Amino acid sequence: MSTDPLVVFTPSGKRGHFPAGTPILTAARQLGVDLDSVCGGRGICSKCQIQPSFGEFPKHGLTSSEGALSEWNSVEQRYKDKRGLIDGRRLGCQATVQGDIVIDVPPESQVHRQVVRKAASAREMIMDPAVRPYYVEVDEPDMHTPTGDLERLATALKDQWDIESVTAGMSVLRKLQPTLRKGKWTCTVVLHKGHQDSEHRILDIYPGYDETRLYGLAIDLGSTTIAAHLTDLRNGTVVASSGIMNPQIRFGEDLMSRVSYSMMNPGGDVEMTTAVRTALNALTDTLSAEAEIQPSQIMEAVFVCNPVMHHLLLGIDPVELGQAPFALATSKSLSLHVADLDLTCMNPAARVFILPCIAGHVGADAAAVALSEAPGEQEELTLVVDVGTNAEILLGNTTQTLACSSPTGPAFEGAQISSGQRAAPGAIERIEIDPATKEPRFQVIGSDTWSDEDGFDAAIATTGVTGICGSGIIEAVAEMRMAGLLDAKGLIGSPEQTGTPRSIPEGRTHSYVIYDGTADGGPLITVTQTDIRAIQLAKSALYAGARLLMDEMGTDTVERVVLAGAFGAHISPKHAMVLGMIPDVPLDKVTSAGNAAGTGARMALCSVEARASIEKTVREITKVETAIEPKFQEHFVNANAIPHATDPFTILRSIAPLPDVSFNTGGSGDGGRRRRRSR
Amino acid sequence: MSTDPLVVFTPSGKRGHFPAGTPILTAARQLGVDLDSVCGGRGICSKCQIQPSFGEFPKHGLTSSEGALSEWNSVEQRYKDKRGLIDGRRLGCQATVQGDIVIDVPPESQVHRQVVRKAASAREMIMDPAVRPYYVEVDEPDMHTPTGDLERLATALKDQWDIESVTAGMSVLRKLQPTLRKGKWTCTVVLHKGHQDSEHRILDIYPGYDETRLYGLAIDLGSTTIAAHLTDLRNGTVVASSGIMNPQIRFGEDLMSRVSYSMMNPGGDVEMTTAVRTALNALTDTLSAEAEIQPSQIMEAVFVCNPVMHHLLLGIDPVELGQAPFALATSKSLSLHVADLDLTCMNPAARVFILPCIAGHVGADAAAVALSEAPGEQEELTLVVDVGTNAEILLGNTTQTLACSSPTGPAFEGAQISSGQRAAPGAIERIEIDPATKEPRFQVIGSDTWSDEDGFDAAIATTGVTGICGSGIIEAVAEMRMAGLLDAKGLIGSPEQTGTPRSIPEGRTHSYVIYDGTADGGPLITVTQTDIRAIQLAKSALYAGARLLMDEMGTDTVERVVLAGAFGAHISPKHAMVLGMIPDVPLDKVTSAGNAAGTGARMALCSVEARASIEKTVREITKVETAIEPKFQEHFVNANAIPHATDPFTILRSIAPLPDVSFNTGGSGDGGRRRRRSR
Repeated sequence: MSTDPLVVFTPSGKRGHFPAGTPILTAARQLGVDLDSVCGGRGICSKCQIQPSFGEFPKHGLTSSEGALSEWNSVEQRYKDKRGLIDGRRLGCQATVQGDIVIDVPPESQVHRQVVRKAASAREMIMDPAVRPYYVEVDEPDMHTPTGDLERLATALKDQWDIESVTAGMSVLRKLQPTLRKGKWTCTVVLHKGHQDSEHRILDIYPGYDETRLYGLAIDLGSTTIAAHLTDLRNGTVVASSGIMNPQIRFGEDLMSRVSYSMMNPGGDVEMTTAVRTALNALTDTLSAEAEIQPSQIMEAVFVCNPVMHHLLLGIDPVELGQAPFALATSKSLSLHVADLDLTCMNPAARVFILPCIAGHVGADAAAVALSEAPGEQEELTLVVDVGTNAEILLGNTTQTLACSSPTGPAFEGAQISSGQRAAPGAIERIEIDPATKEPRFQVIGSDTWSDEDGFDAAIATTGVTGICGSGIIEAVAEMRMAGLLDAKGLIGSPEQTGTPRSIPEGRTHSYVIYDGTADGGPLITVTQTDIRAIQLAKSALYAGARLLMDEMGTDTVERVVLAGAFGAHISPKHAMVLGMIPDVPLDKVTSAGNAAGTGARMALCSVEARASIEKTVREITKVETAIEPKFQEHFVNANAIPHATDPFTILRSIAPLPDVSFNTGGSGDGGRRRRRSR
Repeated sequence: MSTDPLVVFTPSGKRGHFPAGTPILTAARQLGVDLDSVCGGRGICSKCQIQPSFGEFPKHGLTSSEGALSEWNSVEQRYKDKRGLIDGRRLGCQATVQGDIVIDVPPESQVHRQVVRKAASAREMIMDPAVRPYYVEVDEPDMHTPTGDLERLATALKDQWDIESVTAGMSVLRKLQPTLRKGKWTCTVVLHKGHQDSEHRILDIYPGYDETRLYGLAIDLGSTTIAAHLTDLRNGTVVASSGIMNPQIRFGEDLMSRVSYSMMNPGGDVEMTTAVRTALNALTDTLSAEAEIQPSQIMEAVFVCNPVMHHLLLGIDPVELGQAPFALATSKSLSLHVADLDLTCMNPAARVFILPCIAGHVGADAAAVALSEAPGEQEELTLVVDVGTNAEILLGNTTQTLACSSPTGPAFEGAQISSGQRAAPGAIERIEIDPATKEPRFQVIGSDTWSDEDGFDAAIATTGVTGICGSGIIEAVAEMRMAGLLDAKGLIGSPEQTGTPRSIPEGRTHSYVIYDGTADGGPLITVTQTDIRAIQLAKSALYAGARLLMDEMGTDTVERVVLAGAFGAHISPKHAMVLGMIPDVPLDKVTSAGNAAGTGARMALCSVEARASIEKTVREITKVETAIEPKFQEHFVNANAIPHATDPFTILRSIAPLPDVSFNTGGSGDGGRRRRRSR
């Protein structure tokens, strides 16, 4: 048994005996206790604050545990005077072991502190960023042993931080000499090390001890919108978020039209690449301005995107993604320099990390969802559905994870719907239809008042009622089916068949009037037969994808459904199930994960370990290609009815008994059975 | 003992037993025999040609060694028909072992073939370039196991070439997919791996088997001139060489004036960086045009330069190099991307390698001289002197190598000399002065006829006599001393003292007339007292540097002197010793190494091993800083006389007995003793 004092660290429980006089920071490092330090133990950064929780306590005010810890010293007092220190706290680099003691490491003193995610899922996020600042003291140059400033800086990092090997790019080399001299041979270096890097890379250098905050961007580059979260790399806090339309929309609404544009127009891919990079620079500028930071404080950008966006971002012609066998140019994660992507509004040495793609149709966005929702870590068989213009579908539990994508088209986003619009104030997002009177009531985005409640007109005075958004159209179609306005095949009944004048003729079919604002010069908002068909196509594609994964796994049921994406956050699980978008599960087993792809991007931004983890996960995922699987077509056709023609589920019946109506009059009611694509 | 056939390879002598049917290429690889192959054994590239030199020889024409080697096959016949094959040669990938045999690997089939350097030194150069082509067959994409084209290419390189890990930049990623499809899933990839790289980097990719030649540039970036050698990376042949003036000259003739320019003019360093990079691009363009190659065939550039040129090339303000302690921003070798230096006239993925600097005054050019001349490998104590505006001086033998630089100024290059000019047609480069008549005879560059020979006027009809170049002025001063026109202190005698009307007054001093062309409107070419002083300063600086290294090594003599550089190639050893530029050694121990820095650059370009070697050598070299060493000043002052005031040598006397004259008349003759600098 050692006669040296025993030091026990909480919450880790790590313990060891140390000679009297050993600084707590040194003891922590030797035991591998997660105690932060930027200045390397010089009493400058205060990151190593600790809380003595056992020992004899001091007589002379303040907080030293006399006997167990060394006395409060002048460095601590100076720090406290200058910057403040919570009573009871000590600096781990100043306080030394004198007797047996328990030391608590508060969360903010842990490097790899856990950040509880706001989303429903209770999983925690570990801060383990690729980018971190280090304070070092560098030897002055000596003519008799001439070495470069960079080489002496590297020696300092090795001696003071055990960092074996560093490289520096041109932007750092250029400022290295004046910075070291300004800081009187002390500096704070920003180092980057990705999960596959063998060396640290110096991204920036500041004179002396510097507390400049370092930021990263988590970017969800979608076909329609680009969303970016400016994130503090110290604690994972999102300090500003912003989204803009993807300017590539002018080259084609969906992915395949953009691929076509590239095929038809020589140099078209370059146009699209330039457009998105320009937009990313503008978006980055906006975020810096909003958060009032310098572009040079942005040290890394992490991207998630589908394969076509991925290739266009990289400047690779996506033409191969438009035809079988849908070969990616590269599928692994990529670690790049900002200059590779012409990203000019960040630190000139900033890095880019792009998550791996799962397959030619299943991109880095799906990988990000897999990272965020981790179906492969669930005991319950979990279906994760991220609905956009393309749906990314994951099915997994601890035994296996499968993934596919399905081309749902833009109907779920309110596009290609006669009264459809993107989710914005004035858009109908909630609908109920009385099964007896066939009368609708609804809510619009921007107001909590239902349309049949007092004050509705006042509540919508500024926005009006402008259209139906994606979640609104889902509810409208499901409610129409539950109210008997729509039969199982998706045909809208005539006024005679439905008994309501809201069913109005439109060509040889009928539409259902939800809102008639024409008297006041407003819109006539209807659900047309064509709208129903578009939704049927979309939901069939989504369902068929999920069903295909279930086939692969040899199951007819799933235990949990996670709806991801902005759309998933607003969708009503009941209506989605009535419509047959997703397999039946108990309603309380359907959760929304919000922007799971964006969350995955943030997780990868904040944790090198998360990057390694998703790379491994992606390799292990079983990829299912919907485009070549004959069963997909079969499921697609069978899923056309509302609910599915071959519905194997029963839960639905209990939550939403459907009227047994049929309006099929031999007319045009068969449109929904058309195959959507014929690859 | 194995009963399998024995295969012996010459010239390596490696041997082993292999089962009958083993291809010779396979046997060679297993034994580590240096047998080349680009196509990986597919009978395409013919790089693996071998010569069976033992065995039963064939009955049926041609060259198979029946019994000992498999029969001549159709692949070999096809290759011979199409491209030709020397009789007796076989393709190592086609011919298989059948019985005991000796196989000769001809030099052109060796990867690391040795190339005998043209220079006087007999050392050989090993071809071991960082850049090499590899032919591979890549798996086609498969929807069921979706991986990127890059990942499948990496797998092919691993399976077919044992290359563990590759990366690719944007320019390669962009062309990867069309190239693989055009080559029907075969391609030739150009890989780069530097001596410190853990991964291979794909620089370019061509469809199918491709014999596009790959080139590199060896660049000697001097203060005054930039010389570049376009080199075939397969065999080290220089296919084109070109030199241009360094455009930075307009910012200052010598290094210190450029450092001053940067100190005095904010942004001045950027101007100089832009100027040199623009010149490098123009120079590269010229070389590509001259050799009739595409810029994309240039895969690497290797630079040697002094520290100030080094920093300005990199875009680093050289201000620290202008003042003690002369700290380099970085001293190690650098591996960069061409884009880092804005070099746009090469392959977009091309690499840059910059040799390490030895110290703040002793640059990568000195490192290149150390690589080329290898003083540290010599048994004899060897002094290597590379004379430019700055002289790089190395002293070494197998026990130790020392290095310093000395600021000789531009006098040795003909600058700051009244009739001086750069070495060009018309410049006087050889001079003899008759000790009796004091009459000179000379040769000019561009003509072998001496000025006192018949036909001289005709020989110089096109050039005229225009001035004196660097080697000419050295000879002139030495010959003047030997003819008694100059005393030991460097004073030119009056007509009365020297007895020749060629000694003419000039102010309070005298000049010596070498050539008077004024009658025909030509120049009056003289050596003035000021010229003598400039040469004295330059030679004193050079000698003092060498002497300082000798002091450090504790010796009064050296055994061998190597004169490097363009100047060194033209200088007369005898005259250099009379002048006291270099320590006395027997004349046959003075050799010229030509452009040793340029040779070092070429060696590094052609061999990764050479890069590792010079990095190690540079670490081991003892650096001596002339600027802070009081003894340097002492040696400098003592070296002012012709020969040195404290000449410890005797060899000189035997080759050039000097007249014992003294013209010191109490006039201005003491100028040469002024200290040149006072750092």
